[in-house]
Amino acid sequence: MKFNTHLQNLPIYEAGKPIELVTREFGIDPKDVIKLASNENPLGTSKKVISIIKEKASNASLYPDDSFYELKDALANLYEVSSKNIIIGSGSDQIIEFALHAKANEKSAILTAGITFAMYEIYAKHVGAKIYKTKSKEHNLKELKELYLAHKDEISIIFLCLPNNPLGECPDAKEVMDFISIVSEDTLVVTDCAYIEFAKFKDSKKAINPKELISKFKNTLYLGTFSKAYGLGGMRVGYGIANTEIITALHKLRAPFNITTLSLAAALQALNDQKFIEKTLKNNLEEMKVYEKFAKKNGIEFIPSYTNFITFVFDKKQNASQIADNLLKKGIILRNLKSYGLNAIRITIGKKKQNKRVLAELKKEI
Amino acid sequence: MKFNTHLQNLPIYEAGKPIELVTREFGIDPKDVIKLASNENPLGTSKKVISIIKEKASNASLYPDDSFYELKDALANLYEVSSKNIIIGSGSDQIIEFALHAKANEKSAILTAGITFAMYEIYAKHVGAKIYKTKSKEHNLKELKELYLAHKDEISIIFLCLPNNPLGECPDAKEVMDFISIVSEDTLVVTDCAYIEFAKFKDSKKAINPKELISKFKNTLYLGTFSKAYGLGGMRVGYGIANTEIITALHKLRAPFNITTLSLAAALQALNDQKFIEKTLKNNLEEMKVYEKFAKKNGIEFIPSYTNFITFVFDKKQNASQIADNLLKKGIILRNLKSYGLNAIRITIGKKKQNKRVLAELKKEI
Repeated sequence: MKFNTHLQNLPIYEAGKPIELVTREFGIDPKDVIKLASNENPLGTSKKVISIIKEKASNASLYPDDSFYELKDALANLYEVSSKNIIIGSGSDQIIEFALHAKANEKSAILTAGITFAMYEIYAKHVGAKIYKTKSKEHNLKELKELYLAHKDEISIIFLCLPNNPLGECPDAKEVMDFISIVSEDTLVVTDCAYIEFAKFKDSKKAINPKELISKFKNTLYLGTFSKAYGLGGMRVGYGIANTEIITALHKLRAPFNITTLSLAAALQALNDQKFIEKTLKNNLEEMKVYEKFAKKNGIEFIPSYTNFITFVFDKKQNASQIADNLLKKGIILRNLKSYGLNAIRITIGKKKQNKRVLAELKKEI
Repeated sequence: MKFNTHLQNLPIYEAGKPIELVTREFGIDPKDVIKLASNENPLGTSKKVISIIKEKASNASLYPDDSFYELKDALANLYEVSSKNIIIGSGSDQIIEFALHAKANEKSAILTAGITFAMYEIYAKHVGAKIYKTKSKEHNLKELKELYLAHKDEISIIFLCLPNNPLGECPDAKEVMDFISIVSEDTLVVTDCAYIEFAKFKDSKKAINPKELISKFKNTLYLGTFSKAYGLGGMRVGYGIANTEIITALHKLRAPFNITTLSLAAALQALNDQKFIEKTLKNNLEEMKVYEKFAKKNGIEFIPSYTNFITFVFDKKQNASQIADNLLKKGIILRNLKSYGLNAIRITIGKKKQNKRVLAELKKEI
């Protein structure tokens, strides 16, 4: 059977390995597996959220309120925007997909940092758009500007991952705003802020305020997620904030019931437990220092991270894939960044006890 | 901002109204609302499933096993196919979307019955494909054949909704197989069997066996869902069964983690509670008779239904929209089919007590 030609070149996103796989393949008890591969919240999910999921479990047969009225209202309050400025996605990934389908096509291009979240490129290829990346791996706004100006007529979307996954760096909000000011009003600028809670907590200069962003620049789309700091990775809820013109266009591509009934209840409740978020952010910042100390002591290169993970870049003497494979057999799942073209491992900052074991085992491998 | 031109003509699916809306707009206590608008299971969700959701609630922070290994394995056993013949979607809707993006484009067309599930047309418009529909509202296989043969080179996908939503009719499996045998091997035939559990239970001649289907015809894609008989409408899990060539192509379009961690656990458990399904099917068949009797007694036209809903078609003296609106104010949510171009109301078969109240209130309106 013949399929659309663009399918031939579609890469597939390589997800972090699940605990179930390690159990199946190496017979390790799930309790003994440490998974620090997918930047999930190591503290799990807020107890308040767990309660609401249990309370609402019997609603599993009912489709959600497809207007997502209450959740949009809560987000609108949090960010001081209107509900009309908000779209809900099955993870913020899905809103990336909507953006590509709304704005890009085989005649246009997207622009990203040299190494950034893989889904921008994957979704761009779904619609046959060209991809421009900076030579710099990290977000180099000067270089992004030059590349943008060189291909201005072609570039329909610019993706800024703030802070950047899988590298961890984050330009200051002021630099970002300065960059956006040179972009044409017809180019969509997506600021993917999946990890911004961690960045803001470490350094307030990194804070992107969606209200300010979309007021200043009509062509911007702010993305947030419940998957990281909010501890709902498994529930698949993200959101986009933009001017109504953009939201209306994206809404046309949203299928009904794109998040589950329990995801909706969980996300709403997650917004009500700011203490859980604070605890998450504190644990992350404290434990990040443990990793940094380890790296410095052992001569491992790393990028100062504004996220809930740290990326260790190995020199030629070390083979990151080999290290990741060896640890996997011991029940420690980390993220090998080979598919990003790096001899590096991305480690989600876990709980104290987890981090201790991971570093002890890593020490044996280097 | 300029968007892709095809967005201008995209219709938006009109979902059944949620209980929350009736509560918000008319101040009716959610307990007093009867929602028979979205073909959800009136018996709710199996107790076994509710238990597993509660048990796994604390896994909400963890992404699901993206291979969906266990669920595919269970479905493979149920249908006697290989796991490699299966793809999991966020509802079977999502697999319809994948099919369109894999196979259709602005140079091709799709073929459907005159009135059928709205998402085929909506997703077709996402990729700019043309839509051919039979003049007959219901599935008229003779007419589908004629239309197919007249536009053979253009038609890339044929959607058969078996049984048909929102009309309820269902051709015999033998007729369907005969029809598919005349279709070119390069045309994808999707048999959307979201409601087939109800059809099979009423009449075994309606049973489509996916193993037989995909063995006989390499160009077929069988769709099933957990949203209807399995009582998981709110959890968004569907599946496609096809030959590996088709499954591989569709997989390229699947984003990682397209169902939630709790949806995965719920679907797996739902397959283990066949008693719940039997109870569902029995209630449906018994209560369907109550609606048929009412319709006959009151001179309302209806299509004998092989699903969990019945569609009442009103004559010119009655206004279906008005009737639906009046009932809505009383806290009874039914599905007005105006957006399908019909002066009709689709009613999900509820529990005995619900049906009694719905018919008593409907009686006052006609």
